[in-house]
Amino acid sequence: MRVVALAGGVGGAKLVDGLARITSPADLTVIVNTGDDFEHLGLWICPDMDTVVYTLAGLANPDTGWGRNDETWNFLETLSALGGPAWFRLGDRDLALSVERTRRLESGEPLSSIADHFCEGFGVSVQVLPMTDDRVATLVLTVQGELPFQQYFVALGCEPEVRGFRFEGIQDSRPAPGVLPALEEAQLIVLCPSNPWVSLDPILAVPGVRSAIAGKQVVGVSPIVGAQAIKGPAAKMFRELGIEPSALAVAEHYRGLLSGMVIDSQDASLADPIRSLGLGVRVTQTIMRNPLDRKKLAEEVLALAGERLAETEGGL
Amino acid sequence: MRVVALAGGVGGAKLVDGLARITSPADLTVIVNTGDDFEHLGLWICPDMDTVVYTLAGLANPDTGWGRNDETWNFLETLSALGGPAWFRLGDRDLALSVERTRRLESGEPLSSIADHFCEGFGVSVQVLPMTDDRVATLVLTVQGELPFQQYFVALGCEPEVRGFRFEGIQDSRPAPGVLPALEEAQLIVLCPSNPWVSLDPILAVPGVRSAIAGKQVVGVSPIVGAQAIKGPAAKMFRELGIEPSALAVAEHYRGLLSGMVIDSQDASLADPIRSLGLGVRVTQTIMRNPLDRKKLAEEVLALAGERLAETEGGL
Repeated sequence: MRVVALAGGVGGAKLVDGLARITSPADLTVIVNTGDDFEHLGLWICPDMDTVVYTLAGLANPDTGWGRNDETWNFLETLSALGGPAWFRLGDRDLALSVERTRRLESGEPLSSIADHFCEGFGVSVQVLPMTDDRVATLVLTVQGELPFQQYFVALGCEPEVRGFRFEGIQDSRPAPGVLPALEEAQLIVLCPSNPWVSLDPILAVPGVRSAIAGKQVVGVSPIVGAQAIKGPAAKMFRELGIEPSALAVAEHYRGLLSGMVIDSQDASLADPIRSLGLGVRVTQTIMRNPLDRKKLAEEVLALAGERLAETEGGL
Repeated sequence: MRVVALAGGVGGAKLVDGLARITSPADLTVIVNTGDDFEHLGLWICPDMDTVVYTLAGLANPDTGWGRNDETWNFLETLSALGGPAWFRLGDRDLALSVERTRRLESGEPLSSIADHFCEGFGVSVQVLPMTDDRVATLVLTVQGELPFQQYFVALGCEPEVRGFRFEGIQDSRPAPGVLPALEEAQLIVLCPSNPWVSLDPILAVPGVRSAIAGKQVVGVSPIVGAQAIKGPAAKMFRELGIEPSALAVAEHYRGLLSGMVIDSQDASLADPIRSLGLGVRVTQTIMRNPLDRKKLAEEVLALAGERLAETEGGL
């Protein structure tokens, strides 16, 4: 089965890793959010892209979810001693990607080609694509005004109350080479358990992506378990936008796009309400604490897709 | 005595450190070569400036002469794994200066102000000035053609035979703020044991510097001991330019500028030939193996200056 996964940061990267463990690399493409990307210290930083690549390479920091394992912080310590802007935590190893990426971007190489190159360097055979090679910036509309995403997320710790989002540059962005062909060939599209508002919505807003997905088999995994996000501000965002956070709210968020949803055992009572939206549902443990959990969750996603496919064929 | 030292890399930094140990910080200014500066990985690298600051801060790598002590190499290792240009060895701590410097330069801050800021951050109270805030690039004319300095020095290991030098941009460069006032107020100017061709000649070629020095008490320390450079390609350069390398050749190189010269005990036989050029000479151990050697050599430099001053006054 040819699978395309749409992913943001930590949770998305983990499910992608699970999918990579049960599919052939040739059958899996990951399309990654680049709305969080930003310029810092004159460098072009791509947090979600790097998290996905590190996770697939087995190099992710298991404690933080972002950044590298076996990391050192001597660059940041020295930068801080010089009074430089040290609020965004770039480890010594992690920094190399941003420096080399910036160098290549400035020589005219597109982000998608750089991603290929980095995957090759780290021995990642799955295709990892940025959603676009163009610059798109996620802006968080808050009661304090419009904030660049990393300002909101890292510098302000997601504190300001959210009123909405804007993806600057999205109208003029084009899907990166490979994105539309991968979506067209896909037999299953997976919406990873990433933040719907700031991780997957930007990907879905790239012109051409939503229509390439329409009518496809699309299975989502809820990033909300109980009324909480497993990591990050997704639940807080739902609440501040006046929506009770839940797997059902996630299903409604993606309404018209999803054909099925994998939800957590804690949310078993939501299975029927979600089914009543016309979606297939599987209930399982969705919190990925270790590589085996990732693999099992990926298997559930494929199983749900298989069920739906069987139903559709049965219905013909 | 108000002292201005003209310095390049390792040898210059060591003598500057010796001078800092015997003078009040308010009485010592260092003017540093920036002809070796270059752009690499999108960063503005200033090898000589950083070496002088590290040495004065007690943070220099004692084994290499360049770079930081207590250094790690995880950035470079990762860059190398990604196939990036890793020929110029930037350690994790060292890198922070180049990143922060580039960020500040791009925001419009001049190099001299950044140098002040870095000195403050590292607790260096001696005034360290770049020779200019303008961009000057040392080019090495070789039998293989004209090479950017770091290409010649690091990438090619000083292998290509030298025919001459060119300091691109020097005619339009202006001395950095503070350079001419420091020279005007100086009672002693020290030409450190740095490479005459590529470390001190660029400083002397900045318009206004040579005339500010003319007629002053100027004491040099030979970077050539026996027929060898203590470090680096100085002796090789003399030879390839058809000049037998020696302390005498160094004295002749700076002819018209120097009033005295400190040479090594190994070169005692050159004392009279150098005196016959009209220069004062002191013979001592000039190889600086430890901080005490630096201090002793600095004392010899001041002693020679004192002798010359006494002679001049005696002659009045």
